[in-house]
Amino acid sequence: MSDTPSILIVGAGAIGSFYGAILKRAGCPVSVVMRSEYDAVKANGIQIESELGDLSYRPDQVYRDGDSPEAAPDYLILCVKVLPGVDRAALIRPWLGANTRIVLIENGLDIEREIADAFPQNPVISCLAFIGVSRVGPGQIHHNSYGRLVMGQYPNGISEDCQRLSDLFNAGGINVKLTEEVVGERWRKCLWNTPFNPLSVLAEGADTDTILDSDGGEDLIRALTEEVIQVAEADGYPMDRSIIDKQIAGTRKMTAYKNSMALDYLNDRPIELDAVLGNVVAIARKHGVAVPHLNTMLVALRMREKLKVKERS
Amino acid sequence: MSDTPSILIVGAGAIGSFYGAILKRAGCPVSVVMRSEYDAVKANGIQIESELGDLSYRPDQVYRDGDSPEAAPDYLILCVKVLPGVDRAALIRPWLGANTRIVLIENGLDIEREIADAFPQNPVISCLAFIGVSRVGPGQIHHNSYGRLVMGQYPNGISEDCQRLSDLFNAGGINVKLTEEVVGERWRKCLWNTPFNPLSVLAEGADTDTILDSDGGEDLIRALTEEVIQVAEADGYPMDRSIIDKQIAGTRKMTAYKNSMALDYLNDRPIELDAVLGNVVAIARKHGVAVPHLNTMLVALRMREKLKVKERS
Repeated sequence: MSDTPSILIVGAGAIGSFYGAILKRAGCPVSVVMRSEYDAVKANGIQIESELGDLSYRPDQVYRDGDSPEAAPDYLILCVKVLPGVDRAALIRPWLGANTRIVLIENGLDIEREIADAFPQNPVISCLAFIGVSRVGPGQIHHNSYGRLVMGQYPNGISEDCQRLSDLFNAGGINVKLTEEVVGERWRKCLWNTPFNPLSVLAEGADTDTILDSDGGEDLIRALTEEVIQVAEADGYPMDRSIIDKQIAGTRKMTAYKNSMALDYLNDRPIELDAVLGNVVAIARKHGVAVPHLNTMLVALRMREKLKVKERS
Repeated sequence: MSDTPSILIVGAGAIGSFYGAILKRAGCPVSVVMRSEYDAVKANGIQIESELGDLSYRPDQVYRDGDSPEAAPDYLILCVKVLPGVDRAALIRPWLGANTRIVLIENGLDIEREIADAFPQNPVISCLAFIGVSRVGPGQIHHNSYGRLVMGQYPNGISEDCQRLSDLFNAGGINVKLTEEVVGERWRKCLWNTPFNPLSVLAEGADTDTILDSDGGEDLIRALTEEVIQVAEADGYPMDRSIIDKQIAGTRKMTAYKNSMALDYLNDRPIELDAVLGNVVAIARKHGVAVPHLNTMLVALRMREKLKVKERS
C-alpha cells in the first residue's frame, strides 16, 4: 500500500463527506458512492464549511449505487445509519477487494458483527465519531464542532492498518484516539446514548435539561445507566460506577440540547433504535441481565414503528 | 330526602350529561353547572342520542361557574377529568350543603382522597363508569355503548345513600353494581387501564392489537400488569394472577381499538396521567414496591408534559 492509500466513502452524507475531506487533505485519493445526491456532487463536488477552513473537494471518482468500481479501494469507509431496512453488507459488497479494509464510522453497539460475519477475510476497523456536522443542501455540509475519532481493530487490538489510517486522519487535522478495546469504547459511549437518546424520543424530543429536571427524570437516567453498566459488565467490560455522577454533572453543565436521535425523530427521519438500544437489550437477554427500564423504552418505541408501518399501509 | 332527591351535575360533559339524563328519567330534578357550553345548554337543553332512546332533557337549572345555587342539592355528581390543573374541591365547594352527598364518576385510582379530605362532613360515593359516550357538539352527546356503574361508599361500605342512588339509576335504565370495596374495584379496573392507557400514549396512539403484537409487547403488558397487582396487594387488595391471562385473551378477542387516553392524546387533550398511573407509582413507593416498568412510562410521559409547558412559554 502506498503512503496515500485509496479511500472510498460509502454513504457520503454529512459525516462521510467530512471524513473524506480530511483524508483528501492528507493527500489520499478519495472517491464516493452517492445515493441521492449524485448529480450535485458529480457537478460541483462536495462543499464543506468548517472552523478548520474551507474543506470543499472534488472526489476522485463519484459513483452511484449499481456502478462498478475502477479498482477496489485500500480503505472502504462506511458511514450509513444502522437501520433495519438497510442491508449494509449488500451496500459495500460490490466495492470490496480482497485487501480492502472496512472502516465503520457509525453509532451504536454491536454494529460490527454483521459486517465482520459477511466478510471474514477483510479486516474491520471500528470508529466512534465525536462530531457536530450537518447537511445543509445537496453535497453541502456544515461542520459545526469537534471531529475526534476513537478507533480500533474489531473485535480488539490496534493493527498496522489502524495506525496508518489514524496517521492520515491526524495529518488531515483530526485527532484520533487508538484503542485496544473498541467495543469497550462503544459501551462507554452507550452509557450516555442508550439512556438519553431513546428517552428523549419517547418524550417527543425533550432536551437534556427537560429530561434531567422532570419529576423523576434524573433518577430514571440513573436507573437506565446502571442497567447499561450491568450489561456491559456481563459482556466483559467492567465500568466504574462513579461515571454515572460524572455524566449527570457533565450533562447539567452543558447548555440544554436535543441529541441526534431526538432531532431525527423531530424531523421524521428513522432512528437508530437497534444500534443504540435494541442491541443492548439483546445482549442483556443473552447474559440473563434484567433491564426493565431499558426494555420498557425499547418496546414502546417498537410499537411506534409498528404503528407507523400499519398506518402507512 | 324525598323519593326523588335533587341532583346537581358539575362538569356536565358527555359522561355527566348522560348520567344526568338517566336520573332525570327516574324523576329527579337535575341541574347542571356548565363551563364552556353554558349558552347552548341554556338555550336548547342537552341532546342525547342513545340506543336507550332519545334521552334529551332540559336541566331544571343551568348554572355556570361563579353562580350561586338556589338550594344545595341532595347529590352532587362530579364528572370532570382528574388533571393537575383542575382544583376539584374548589369546583364543588360553592354548591355543597351540609347534607349534600358527593358522587364521583371519574377514572383512576386514589382520586377520592382529595375530595374526602376537603369535605370531611360530606359522604363521598365513588363510581366507576363502563361506558362509551362522546360529545358531538355544544350540549350534544352521542351514547355509543354500555353505561354500567360500579358504586360504593368511600373508603368502603354500601350506605343507604348509595342504595338510594343505585335504585334511581336502575329506575332510569342503567345497571349498577354496588360494592363494599370500591377501592378494590378501582384497582381491578387499573389492571387494564394502568398498563394499556399510558403505553398506547407513549406509542403515539397505538391500538390494542399493535400493543400486543409488537415485538415484546405482550410481555411488557404482562410485566406492567404484574407490577400493578403487586402494588394492589401491598395496598391491601389481593388479586388472582390468572386475571393477567384472562385480560390478554379478552383484549385479543376484541376488535383492535384505541383507548380513551390514546384518543385524548391524539386529539391534543390533556391525559389523566396521575389518576391512572402516577397515583399507582406513588402508592408503590409508599409501600416500597419496585415498579421499574410503570415508572419508566410515568417519567417519560411527565417529560413530555414538561416539554409542552416549556415550549408554550
